[in-house]
Amino acid sequence: MANESKLQRLFVRGVFAPGARVELDRSQAHYLVNVLRLGDGDSLLVFNGRDGEFRATLATESRRSHALDIGEQVRRQPAAPDLRYLFAPLKQARLDYMVEKATEMGVARMTPVLTQHGQVGRVNRERMEANAIEAAEQCGILTLPKVDEPLALDTLIDAWPQEEPARRIIFCDEADGRADPLAILAALPASPLAVLVGPEGGFSASERDKLRGLAFVTALPLGPRILRADTAAVAALALVQAARGDWRDPTVAPA
Amino acid sequence: MANESKLQRLFVRGVFAPGARVELDRSQAHYLVNVLRLGDGDSLLVFNGRDGEFRATLATESRRSHALDIGEQVRRQPAAPDLRYLFAPLKQARLDYMVEKATEMGVARMTPVLTQHGQVGRVNRERMEANAIEAAEQCGILTLPKVDEPLALDTLIDAWPQEEPARRIIFCDEADGRADPLAILAALPASPLAVLVGPEGGFSASERDKLRGLAFVTALPLGPRILRADTAAVAALALVQAARGDWRDPTVAPA
Repeated sequence: MANESKLQRLFVRGVFAPGARVELDRSQAHYLVNVLRLGDGDSLLVFNGRDGEFRATLATESRRSHALDIGEQVRRQPAAPDLRYLFAPLKQARLDYMVEKATEMGVARMTPVLTQHGQVGRVNRERMEANAIEAAEQCGILTLPKVDEPLALDTLIDAWPQEEPARRIIFCDEADGRADPLAILAALPASPLAVLVGPEGGFSASERDKLRGLAFVTALPLGPRILRADTAAVAALALVQAARGDWRDPTVAPA
Repeated sequence: MANESKLQRLFVRGVFAPGARVELDRSQAHYLVNVLRLGDGDSLLVFNGRDGEFRATLATESRRSHALDIGEQVRRQPAAPDLRYLFAPLKQARLDYMVEKATEMGVARMTPVLTQHGQVGRVNRERMEANAIEAAEQCGILTLPKVDEPLALDTLIDAWPQEEPARRIIFCDEADGRADPLAILAALPASPLAVLVGPEGGFSASERDKLRGLAFVTALPLGPRILRADTAAVAALALVQAARGDWRDPTVAPA
């Protein structure tokens, strides 16, 4: 959908303040100068995940050395979202896609979860972080999701923090297509939330039974059709953000 | 997510009845024999988009000639969904993805719509149909969406059928992130629906004004973050299916 600004948006690690100069590392300088073809004095937008969005101008100090002169802040850092996303890792193209989508959907933290039917046991965390940064740059998101190391489902569940109110895990349960997902979400008590999406092979019967037996877990059906895991991810996050998250009118008090 | 059956599912053009034999064309025979490595007498599931899902066995008549012997029906043809999906075509990889996702989300008909900021003016309709078939095979969907030729937005709107109740167009409007999407959907009068998603560049101001001025069009916000068009597609279809479509408990009368 439309971008607020036609200016290129770039994630840069560094401390921003109007008037500050931030040195660019070689890969970022290469990207701005050789890929985007920006020159000395050209403008762009920068964010560091903490301080909001700033206008910046490229300062070419030498052929090999480039910096950014930070200008005025154009957007404040928004309140960080508080939605966790737990997912069985997919093969690379669909995993790239899923990380991009989860970032756009506003998850604060992503945790790869290893399940019995999962086909992928290892994930490239740096690649996931790069996909999240690219999605944030593309879509004007100023808070980058944290990317965790993979965790076994049992370990995740057994160590789930139980402070009150416990963060509720909403898991996408394709075996329950008759129930009404919005009614289920509307009936939840107020608490922080996490969305859990299983592997293409689905959860095993024992995993499902264990999840369904936990007081801090809620099964969410996603209609009468089987969905691929990367589809279920966007669909479930859309329902949760619309029913319980930051897609609701912020002038309306949360349920 | 999990598949109901471990048997391969294949779309086959032909008339199905228990005991019938359906000849396979060369590409389907190649796929079953050389890609899936099925042999004479092996079982699979077949559907033709009209007659439900049948068990079938591969019958090898000769090295070059293969047929399917249709067995018992395992699933009835479900009631055809009645949701149209209107979208500005995207570049190929994201278009493939969008067609796959729209099929999984249960749209009955897809219409590429040409808009002022769209970057893609031509679409490969056969490729879109092949992507829809692959998604249906993968996800156990028995009704294939119809794929239309591209149409200019003005033409689509000016010729929009006005029988009562007119089919309502819900268009994803990122310029309106403060309103509550579920409240908007819940307040709609009963009517058939279409979901319209614009190009990556968004709708032009004049397109937006025209859409917002039409009685049969409703703007749907999708939260405070900008979404890519292929993300907005899944998110909007999920909200519409959950709030107004076939994701609700079918034992509950529609609003």
